[in-house]
Amino acid sequence: MPVNDERIAAMNKAWILVADIGGTNGRFALVPAEVNGNLYEPMLVASEGHLENKPMCQQALTLASKGAPSVLALVQQYLALIPTDFKIIGASLALAGPVINQQVHLINLGWSACASQLSAALNMPVLLLNDFVAYANSVPALDPKQLLTVRAGEAVTSAPILVLGPGTGFGAAVLHPMKQHFVPVGCEAGHICLAATNAEQDALLLHARRQVSVVNVEYFLSGPGLVRLYQAMAELMLREAQSGETPINAIPASLLDSPAAITEAALAGNSVLAIRTLRCFCYWLGQVVSDLVLAHGALGGVVLCGGILPKIVPLIKQGEFINGVMAKDDVRHYLQPVPIQLALNSDTALIGAALWWQQHQLE
Amino acid sequence: MPVNDERIAAMNKAWILVADIGGTNGRFALVPAEVNGNLYEPMLVASEGHLENKPMCQQALTLASKGAPSVLALVQQYLALIPTDFKIIGASLALAGPVINQQVHLINLGWSACASQLSAALNMPVLLLNDFVAYANSVPALDPKQLLTVRAGEAVTSAPILVLGPGTGFGAAVLHPMKQHFVPVGCEAGHICLAATNAEQDALLLHARRQVSVVNVEYFLSGPGLVRLYQAMAELMLREAQSGETPINAIPASLLDSPAAITEAALAGNSVLAIRTLRCFCYWLGQVVSDLVLAHGALGGVVLCGGILPKIVPLIKQGEFINGVMAKDDVRHYLQPVPIQLALNSDTALIGAALWWQQHQLE
Repeated sequence: MPVNDERIAAMNKAWILVADIGGTNGRFALVPAEVNGNLYEPMLVASEGHLENKPMCQQALTLASKGAPSVLALVQQYLALIPTDFKIIGASLALAGPVINQQVHLINLGWSACASQLSAALNMPVLLLNDFVAYANSVPALDPKQLLTVRAGEAVTSAPILVLGPGTGFGAAVLHPMKQHFVPVGCEAGHICLAATNAEQDALLLHARRQVSVVNVEYFLSGPGLVRLYQAMAELMLREAQSGETPINAIPASLLDSPAAITEAALAGNSVLAIRTLRCFCYWLGQVVSDLVLAHGALGGVVLCGGILPKIVPLIKQGEFINGVMAKDDVRHYLQPVPIQLALNSDTALIGAALWWQQHQLE
Repeated sequence: MPVNDERIAAMNKAWILVADIGGTNGRFALVPAEVNGNLYEPMLVASEGHLENKPMCQQALTLASKGAPSVLALVQQYLALIPTDFKIIGASLALAGPVINQQVHLINLGWSACASQLSAALNMPVLLLNDFVAYANSVPALDPKQLLTVRAGEAVTSAPILVLGPGTGFGAAVLHPMKQHFVPVGCEAGHICLAATNAEQDALLLHARRQVSVVNVEYFLSGPGLVRLYQAMAELMLREAQSGETPINAIPASLLDSPAAITEAALAGNSVLAIRTLRCFCYWLGQVVSDLVLAHGALGGVVLCGGILPKIVPLIKQGEFINGVMAKDDVRHYLQPVPIQLALNSDTALIGAALWWQQHQLE
């Protein structure tokens, strides 16, 4: 690498190592930090009063986590790949597992890690956080252009904001407004019981209960869950066809087997089964969103996220989703003003990790 | 009132007016406040490192709220009843309605109130908070003797604590640990959908759906809900008797019609219907508790409260409740260490209101 002006400037700066480590890959980057009083603040590009979704990061690399022996080994691998003259003052690592007292266990990888051991081995302060919490932590810093309004409303600024959505599982976190910034709190909302409120949902839950003893939210409301919902709906429609309620030709001879194929078929409008599956998916998602708004008193608003919803924006806006949100008559007045937005990009956990450093570096 | 030494001391002190105003009554008291730096701190009796459940309050009075024209009128009525020489420096009013941006609407009374108008009319700073939030805010200050251990565990001190329980409705709030104290956040968890996870619950939900379009948690998990559950269970057992699954003499000729009568019959062990109703109630409560722990990431623990549970301690400890909590196999490791306690006294909202003053007087 040629030693140019930029490089010399970089060498004189302080940098924070940020990472987002999942079951397949770990994304790494360095974020420049400025001294502000006795704190280092990550420098994120300000734009229209908000922060852009790309910090001025350098040395962005993606490494395979699958097969690597540990968090430490993966971080060391990254450090060995970048020039040695960056002054790295600390690391903020987002990880795909629950982080409790700065310790984490990544089930898929069989890894355990704790911040103090990583810190000693890497000779720098290390902060750990859950990857979905890191993502949620980036939401207040997102450019408004990255958020699509699903339903306008009036946010109560002193109330929590709910960040949630279907992806590989069903991710959820809550942002609590404090004086300086939002405090993200992670949770396991994908594992709460899925409630049925009508005969169609009853039939689908009964189908699911043949597979698992307790049917939870992510059993149907996730990427893999969408495929399960489609299969359960096919069985339901077959039963309906046998009793003459549904034309038999509504059920395709061969079933689709990926979330993308199902959402595409529904959007193309050429599969009654896929359309009905997505209508059910959106309604049920709305129902769960309203449950979680009520459970959290999340009058600050809802930000939908995850990989699936940006692909089905027309379906989310078609009404079944909002019908699901507003199904509870006795709390309509409570739910009506809650603004609902959809994050078009769920890939901003590195920004959240950088901000986490800013928020927690003194701990 | 004779002017004695105590009275003279009282006249020289500063006092905070605290109130807990519900649909029937308003409880009022004055709490002495000490100057600490530039803050007034309510003086609560310290005992074994915790605060006793009775602050050194004076002039405790209960006034009928039903029939009174407004919050302001009720506070003025209280002020007119107490000696005029207490130096009252502010008021912290807990109210039975959602408080949003220091405004509240009490549906049962048809009252609306906002802090700034009350403050102008009373000529003192006024803070409003929800009554269940006030109760939850008192929990960290309770003497440990007032908390019964339902299940020991290991609390994560940096994680939220869930305070919840069946009463007139289903109250719930979350305590978020901050550096100085816990921040209570109110919610409407009683209105989330009630999920069924087995055939008995399915049958009971179907029964409930004949009455309401969406069956929520408090439909069955509250005082009035217990009566509804008992009635639905009677119908279910009658159907079972018709098909020979249940002996017909298990169903009493006349049904009980109050929560107290049903819990007493179950505790006395002389009603198959009441026993089965309470077993179902406890299991379902456990299921909802685990859902809310997951929804909030409440690894800080659970405090059960409300008027019903202290009366059925033997049933809560009998196992159905914990069976309900632990029914989700895939998150057993997450739920297992969460400590669960039962508050024996749910009447401590005035303490929470006094502490709220301490926490928020500068806002």
